[in-house]
Amino acid sequence: MPHRLSDIAAALGARVEGDGTLIIAGAREPAAAGADDLALALEPKYADGLARGAARAALMWEGADWRAHGLAAALFVARPRYAMAGVTRMLDPGPDIAPGIHPSAVIASDAEIGGDAAIGPFVVIGSGVRIGAGARIGAHASIAAGSEIGDGLLLHAGARIGPRVRIGARFIGHSGSVVGADGFSFVTPDKSGVEEVRETLGRRAATQDSGWTRIHSLGAVAIGDDVELGANSCIDRGTVRDTVVGSGTKIDNLIQIGHNVVIGQDCMLCGQSGVAGSARVGDRVVVGGKSAINDNIFVGDDVIIGGGTNVYTNAPAGRVLLGSPAVEMSRQLEINRAIRRLPRLLKQVAELHKAVSKRADND
Amino acid sequence: MPHRLSDIAAALGARVEGDGTLIIAGAREPAAAGADDLALALEPKYADGLARGAARAALMWEGADWRAHGLAAALFVARPRYAMAGVTRMLDPGPDIAPGIHPSAVIASDAEIGGDAAIGPFVVIGSGVRIGAGARIGAHASIAAGSEIGDGLLLHAGARIGPRVRIGARFIGHSGSVVGADGFSFVTPDKSGVEEVRETLGRRAATQDSGWTRIHSLGAVAIGDDVELGANSCIDRGTVRDTVVGSGTKIDNLIQIGHNVVIGQDCMLCGQSGVAGSARVGDRVVVGGKSAINDNIFVGDDVIIGGGTNVYTNAPAGRVLLGSPAVEMSRQLEINRAIRRLPRLLKQVAELHKAVSKRADND
Amino acid sequence: MPHRLSDIAAALGARVEGDGTLIIAGAREPAAAGADDLALALEPKYADGLARGAARAALMWEGADWRAHGLAAALFVARPRYAMAGVTRMLDPGPDIAPGIHPSAVIASDAEIGGDAAIGPFVVIGSGVRIGAGARIGAHASIAAGSEIGDGLLLHAGARIGPRVRIGARFIGHSGSVVGADGFSFVTPDKSGVEEVRETLGRRAATQDSGWTRIHSLGAVAIGDDVELGANSCIDRGTVRDTVVGSGTKIDNLIQIGHNVVIGQDCMLCGQSGVAGSARVGDRVVVGGKSAINDNIFVGDDVIIGGGTNVYTNAPAGRVLLGSPAVEMSRQLEINRAIRRLPRLLKQVAELHKAVSKRADND
Repeated sequence: MPHRLSDIAAALGARVEGDGTLIIAGAREPAAAGADDLALALEPKYADGLARGAARAALMWEGADWRAHGLAAALFVARPRYAMAGVTRMLDPGPDIAPGIHPSAVIASDAEIGGDAAIGPFVVIGSGVRIGAGARIGAHASIAAGSEIGDGLLLHAGARIGPRVRIGARFIGHSGSVVGADGFSFVTPDKSGVEEVRETLGRRAATQDSGWTRIHSLGAVAIGDDVELGANSCIDRGTVRDTVVGSGTKIDNLIQIGHNVVIGQDCMLCGQSGVAGSARVGDRVVVGGKSAINDNIFVGDDVIIGGGTNVYTNAPAGRVLLGSPAVEMSRQLEINRAIRRLPRLLKQVAELHKAVSKRADND
Repeated sequence: MPHRLSDIAAALGARVEGDGTLIIAGAREPAAAGADDLALALEPKYADGLARGAARAALMWEGADWRAHGLAAALFVARPRYAMAGVTRMLDPGPDIAPGIHPSAVIASDAEIGGDAAIGPFVVIGSGVRIGAGARIGAHASIAAGSEIGDGLLLHAGARIGPRVRIGARFIGHSGSVVGADGFSFVTPDKSGVEEVRETLGRRAATQDSGWTRIHSLGAVAIGDDVELGANSCIDRGTVRDTVVGSGTKIDNLIQIGHNVVIGQDCMLCGQSGVAGSARVGDRVVVGGKSAINDNIFVGDDVIIGGGTNVYTNAPAGRVLLGSPAVEMSRQLEINRAIRRLPRLLKQVAELHKAVSKRADND
Repeated sequence: MPHRLSDIAAALGARVEGDGTLIIAGAREPAAAGADDLALALEPKYADGLARGAARAALMWEGADWRAHGLAAALFVARPRYAMAGVTRMLDPGPDIAPGIHPSAVIASDAEIGGDAAIGPFVVIGSGVRIGAGARIGAHASIAAGSEIGDGLLLHAGARIGPRVRIGARFIGHSGSVVGADGFSFVTPDKSGVEEVRETLGRRAATQDSGWTRIHSLGAVAIGDDVELGANSCIDRGTVRDTVVGSGTKIDNLIQIGHNVVIGQDCMLCGQSGVAGSARVGDRVVVGGKSAINDNIFVGDDVIIGGGTNVYTNAPAGRVLLGSPAVEMSRQLEINRAIRRLPRLLKQVAELHKAVSKRADND
């Protein structure tokens, strides 16, 4: 989607210096940028790259002398990292979904689909489904009966929406993402070994489980506006109420959101993290990659969870957590340093013990 | 699937008090329950919810005074959590798969499919496949050549069964689950760095690997009865024998079962856990979320593995394990407490060292 | 694919003893081998199995007396584990993809597909796609517009290739794998809590994030030759440059490769591991199951990362790492031993403290 440099500047609220009539077709790192690319030179360290690349215009750090770098124009913004959002949005050619409804799509006669839809080959849309305007649905995606989705839907190839799910506006579901699979909930006729161990914190009698009986998921999934769900990520349906994901929450790839979970607004869950069944997560919580939130616990607003962290117990609002089990990040870093000194500590204590015993003998 | 309350009671072996002729269409938490829902008030803490909701009937804790809560009827059972299984099964509207075989499905002429099948749009079933009675197969699912599956199959949209797999009765495969992808098995012409490190526990010479050659998977996957496989979970095929999952074992979302693994009966594997190649897992083993079982090890019957645990070595039957590396849960909790005290311990030892040295100087 | 034993021997560079004219149709463990199977008796411990099975030929350990085990022939090779690659390749019946192009496939008129293609039902191939010779593409797989792939492609059912991706020869993508989903990259109008915590290592002021704005992914994915991508694994596209995976690298199931990541040649990433955004990984790196590499860090050539390891910081070439946070494996094993002794150590120090204090009182 080529744009005039001055139009990009206007959209970003950027200051343009030099030739604003240049036509920009893409954005690249300075060294790889071609003549119609906007070079992204957000810091002085990119100066060398500008010399190697062929860009005629760049988004630059404040104070840069663009003429000295051989450019015809430059953009300047207050927060270059934020400007990346606007630049990349304008220049994104978008997914491979042709306008209109592909004749091979199987759409229930009573499904309601808003205007300007783009629906790819072999898409399946079930009975009673309602989708807002401007939907783009890639090949092989499916939306099961009774689901309702707002305007501006983007489902990539092979994304799955189960039955009776409710989703707000501007939802993005990547390939292989699954909204509304059944929750993982089973029960034994008698108290199970897991129930016993949870009560005793590890001790168990001779409990022997006698087979799992399925608890079906009668609830669904309710998702707010502006939620993005990464490739092959899963949000399970609730047991007798809905699993909930608040507006503005962003979910990366290969993430598991268990049944009955409630996640607030504007959270960010990074790759391969997971939230176990019935956990409640506040607003603006950030969950690092490969981290886990235990079932049935509560994580307060604005909590930040570092990568590779297992949160086993409730976390009050505003905490910054790291480690397994998770503790405050500053404390975990102190613990990590202490652990590295542990083998030496063992030797020291052994020597102390020897010195003190010897003295006792001498007394 | 609306039911008369007395029929639900009969199916659950529950005692009904009050008006058993009420028609029940769903089940909800008490505060959210409508007039045709069964309120699930399993504990006294739900009393408030009953007042806020509109339910006329509830599944209640033993001894509850249902009339005082304004209800027209109540059910009482010995183990309310177990009754959840029966209630939700009866009231589940089920997946979105229409009866009959959708005309777009591509089914090999020599595939044998039992009676009462429901097969959705764009399903692909390969040559020589045999499926029992009552199969429900969602849109875009595929079953490759030569696989045999028992009665009561439920494959959700986009589930994948590879070639020559054998599966028992009542298998449930959720969207994106993959049974029978190739095992991850490679070999180098000479001894690899990994082989060397395994032998030396970390020391390595100048071994430089010279490229991986693929070991193909000639084995398949053999799955017992009543197994459930969660969304986007994977069970790889074996190298020269089958990967095996025993009857009654339940597998959550995003789980990896490696090649040649043997898992026993009635196990439960929670979200994002994994069992690496050639591990053997006994019966009734519970694996917590995000936990891992190392390759080539043995985990005995009735072992319970807490969430976020990495099991590196063999685990005898009946153990309750936690942590990384996994140790007995009670011991891990003791270790966790000790680790939190570690920074203070370092200071104490430094002070002791000082006190003892000083005294030695004074002697 | 049955073969004459002497032909298998020739392909493996093996020494054949006995009847080389035997026809071999499969390969099995000795105890399960039938009359037309090659028994894989790579070590003396398999001798018993040979007695129980029905094989007439075996791949054996050097020095084995095949006649004494009742066999008609045996193969001997210098490195039996390596010979497994050749044996299984020859005897693999391959995936369930019929030759030719299934009439239901939707292939853009300007897509170029090389000779001898096998394309299954409901495959979708976008505009401008170029694929080399000998491609095998399973049911429901999709390749989006503008992607270019070399000879010998094998895409299993439901694999996804996004737009403008470049892949070399002999790529294998398993079911549910996703190449080229959007990167997970968001920015806040003002400095976010995560940015603040990264700078302060855990301390944070009252920063409250005000909503995430999406940075679109203008880059693509560039993959070398001989790469294999496991079931439900994901490689995200880069922001303004390509995410890169070098030739010969093997990626197992449920693995996440973040945006802008650069992975070298001949690496091996085991199940459920992950590489976070913008990390750089050298050549011949081995990443154990469930391990993670932090974003923006560097992992040198020939590094071996044990299972369940979280690598938070740069790792120099040749390191062998284990644990969370990762340290050298030998050191981690020492730390693990020390941690197990930690509860006892606490008691020892308390006793020492008492002894030293008491003596001070006595002085």
